Amino acid sequence: MKAESVRPDRLADMSTTPAPPDSAVRTFIQNHRSAFLADLAAWLRIPSVSADPGRAGEVRRSAEWLAGKLRETGFPAVEIWETPGAPAVFAEWPSGDPGAPTVLVYGHHDVQPAALGDGWHSEPFEPVERDGRLYARGAADDKGQVFFHTLGVRAHLAATGRTAPAVNLKLLIEGEEESGSPHFPALVGAHAERLACDVALVSDTGMWDRETPTVCTGMRGLTDCQIDLYGPDQDVHSGSFGGAVPNPATEAARLAAALHDEDHKVTLPGFYDGVIELTDEERALFAELPFDEDAWLRTAHSHAPLGEEGYTTLERVWARPTAEVNGIGGGYQGPGGKTIVPAQAQLKLSFRTVAGQDADKIQQTVRTWVAERLPAGIRHEIIFWGATRPCLAPLGHPALQSVTRAMGRAFGTSVRFTREGGSGPAADLQDLLDVPVLFLGISIPSDGWHAPNEKVELDLLFKGVETTAYLWGDLAAHWSAD
Amino acid sequence: MKAESVRPDRLADMSTTPAPPDSAVRTFIQNHRSAFLADLAAWLRIPSVSADPGRAGEVRRSAEWLAGKLRETGFPAVEIWETPGAPAVFAEWPSGDPGAPTVLVYGHHDVQPAALGDGWHSEPFEPVERDGRLYARGAADDKGQVFFHTLGVRAHLAATGRTAPAVNLKLLIEGEEESGSPHFPALVGAHAERLACDVALVSDTGMWDRETPTVCTGMRGLTDCQIDLYGPDQDVHSGSFGGAVPNPATEAARLAAALHDEDHKVTLPGFYDGVIELTDEERALFAELPFDEDAWLRTAHSHAPLGEEGYTTLERVWARPTAEVNGIGGGYQGPGGKTIVPAQAQLKLSFRTVAGQDADKIQQTVRTWVAERLPAGIRHEIIFWGATRPCLAPLGHPALQSVTRAMGRAFGTSVRFTREGGSGPAADLQDLLDVPVLFLGISIPSDGWHAPNEKVELDLLFKGVETTAYLWGDLAAHWSAD
Repeated sequence: MKAESVRPDRLADMSTTPAPPDSAVRTFIQNHRSAFLADLAAWLRIPSVSADPGRAGEVRRSAEWLAGKLRETGFPAVEIWETPGAPAVFAEWPSGDPGAPTVLVYGHHDVQPAALGDGWHSEPFEPVERDGRLYARGAADDKGQVFFHTLGVRAHLAATGRTAPAVNLKLLIEGEEESGSPHFPALVGAHAERLACDVALVSDTGMWDRETPTVCTGMRGLTDCQIDLYGPDQDVHSGSFGGAVPNPATEAARLAAALHDEDHKVTLPGFYDGVIELTDEERALFAELPFDEDAWLRTAHSHAPLGEEGYTTLERVWARPTAEVNGIGGGYQGPGGKTIVPAQAQLKLSFRTVAGQDADKIQQTVRTWVAERLPAGIRHEIIFWGATRPCLAPLGHPALQSVTRAMGRAFGTSVRFTREGGSGPAADLQDLLDVPVLFLGISIPSDGWHAPNEKVELDLLFKGVETTAYLWGDLAAHWSAD
Repeated sequence: MKAESVRPDRLADMSTTPAPPDSAVRTFIQNHRSAFLADLAAWLRIPSVSADPGRAGEVRRSAEWLAGKLRETGFPAVEIWETPGAPAVFAEWPSGDPGAPTVLVYGHHDVQPAALGDGWHSEPFEPVERDGRLYARGAADDKGQVFFHTLGVRAHLAATGRTAPAVNLKLLIEGEEESGSPHFPALVGAHAERLACDVALVSDTGMWDRETPTVCTGMRGLTDCQIDLYGPDQDVHSGSFGGAVPNPATEAARLAAALHDEDHKVTLPGFYDGVIELTDEERALFAELPFDEDAWLRTAHSHAPLGEEGYTTLERVWARPTAEVNGIGGGYQGPGGKTIVPAQAQLKLSFRTVAGQDADKIQQTVRTWVAERLPAGIRHEIIFWGATRPCLAPLGHPALQSVTRAMGRAFGTSVRFTREGGSGPAADLQDLLDVPVLFLGISIPSDGWHAPNEKVELDLLFKGVETTAYLWGDLAAHWSAD
């Protein structure tokens, strides 16, 4: 299903009262809670940082650990899938029921870089449970959210007396999501037959807050790059040469500064071409959410909002394309001063895209734009780490109704809709497998994704387990009915 | 003598043939060459990096080492002068001749930071002699140029049979020059009576090239600062929050980019107020120097010139005020990408000033300019490391004739005039002691000041020794005559 065809045409009606919880499911979860958490902690101890070439072995160890655990869970087929980079894990558990729908669950086992010195209160790869939360790099993004599926399917079997799930269940857990999933499209393409499904379910997103379960309907895309600038062949004295030779730190700053205009719109030529704009209805739905800007700023650890003119904060982070400086560096950064013209500077930029934008075109525009702006005497190199496409889910799809019902039943309340500002390879599944992509995540904004002291709320983690315990039966029942 | 009163009114006439060298001087220097170099190497082994608080002890050790060596040289009075920062060394050797002029030699014993990993071919604090050059941090800037005075005064005594120099000789060797000399004005003010002199001679500059001895007639001033910018309280996910909160790395880049206009003129309001512009005569003299832009670019390790419109490269580095980005840093700078909005960024800026500018006013302008440009949600701090005033020497002064004659005699050729783009506390001597300031330096542009692989050319180093061996007698003779 192509991005253009998945615009919401009608919104799911979620005004019905949720079904009561299943006590068999809850009892099963309660009985397996400790073992589940111990297993998750063991996985979190593996520092599977895909952006760090020095930790490639740890990413592989993470894949092998997960494969073993999925076999223990009961998946009859579990495989490590190699890529030119980090390996993915694939698992398959056929339903056995004729006509059962096939669901492909997507997540990732790699994590963002993390070091104690970045502001962590405890070692990022030594999980700590405190005040009902589990702190560790990857607790929420994404190991915790992958892992709730393992206990969820067992609870589904235990409560229904089945020996195989009500749906044909497939899992694809990749190892390069935090590096922009450079090999994911090729991986999906190569294994398209094994991955064939009716719907993809991404568990790598969040919900509104502790009290407001929500289903995400879209993600932004991402393409990011590093621009290295070279001026003098070595640092030179700014008294002797300053003011008469080009300075790569100045040029890096000029590039970064020129990315936005006064209205905080991105200035790259053609950047907004093709953007599928928000409809009035979507903007109204967003506006109905219990958004508290002060509270949001606290989760953003920020002291004021700032962004594109003409859009609300939610619209900016969920539905607007952006350009962001992730890192800049050049010259002397030690204590005190050093009066040099630096030899080198570096800029790390990321671009968030929305449905309708073309990342290839944006990359080409950046290359041209940078080359045109640099003066003689500054050499440069640009590396794009990859591109993850944006994604929009079909709000009218019956499987979305099932996800929303299962989540409402687990949480005991009505479910609302959001989008996700972050990025994931969901669009590759959507495009390459030609299926609708749905999102099931239980993380909340304060979980600290990509930040120090990442954590997951344990009660929400087990709501995720419970949601999936209900989901497969609901989906099978309503799939055939629709 | 105030800066306004030292504009060149007439240029020294240096067309006369230099006097022949004194063989007694040359023999003395030759006989003491090895011991001199061994002593200098011992001093260069002391990593007296004043910008690094962790090396304060080394700066003190450097001062004590020098004080001991000056006592050995014969100075009857040698003292360590304390400051709130690093100590200076003062030495005094009265002439005994009635009416002898008093000369105060200025230099510094602290050095720039240096580490092998910056691109040094050998340890920066382990001097290596190779191909007639001595490689070490401080070899040229400024330990080598301070040290030639020790052998110079001994050669002067040996060749003339005197037991005390022909001038009242004072040395003031400070320990904070590479940190902007924050306590130097107070030090000079506190010891003004001991420092009283007829002329100050600064040995912390260079000459045109190996074949073209020159006397420097002015230095630029310097004021430099660090601007710390704080956005989110911690790094946050650029997918979840990017495009909706202020980014301190972007703001640092915007400040750096806004420092210059399209003509590479500094945009700070009032920055050029009061600048004493070059006269047509000075511009013509500069233009007569054998300037080879390609060769200059090689010494600048740069691949193209770039600077203020309307000025030549020499004018840009010698006589024009500038703003330079010495360092910029913020966000993720490790391998690969990290999609964050960073919590902090930092900018290190230096401003070179010329006679007529007011550093206090520039500092205040920077503070206002930065505060006005930053959006809500970005907190900032600015620290100015200090200010060194610009300096212009009186070209018509008889002492300048002596310096030029002594240098011409040592080198056996005519001497020309330059300025120095770098900065030193010369202007404090000029202003606080109310004396003319002259410059005697033998370093050349390729010596790598503030850069990896700093070195001094040994033959030029001994020309410095020889120049001072002639200078004191010439100065005493012509002082009384004038």
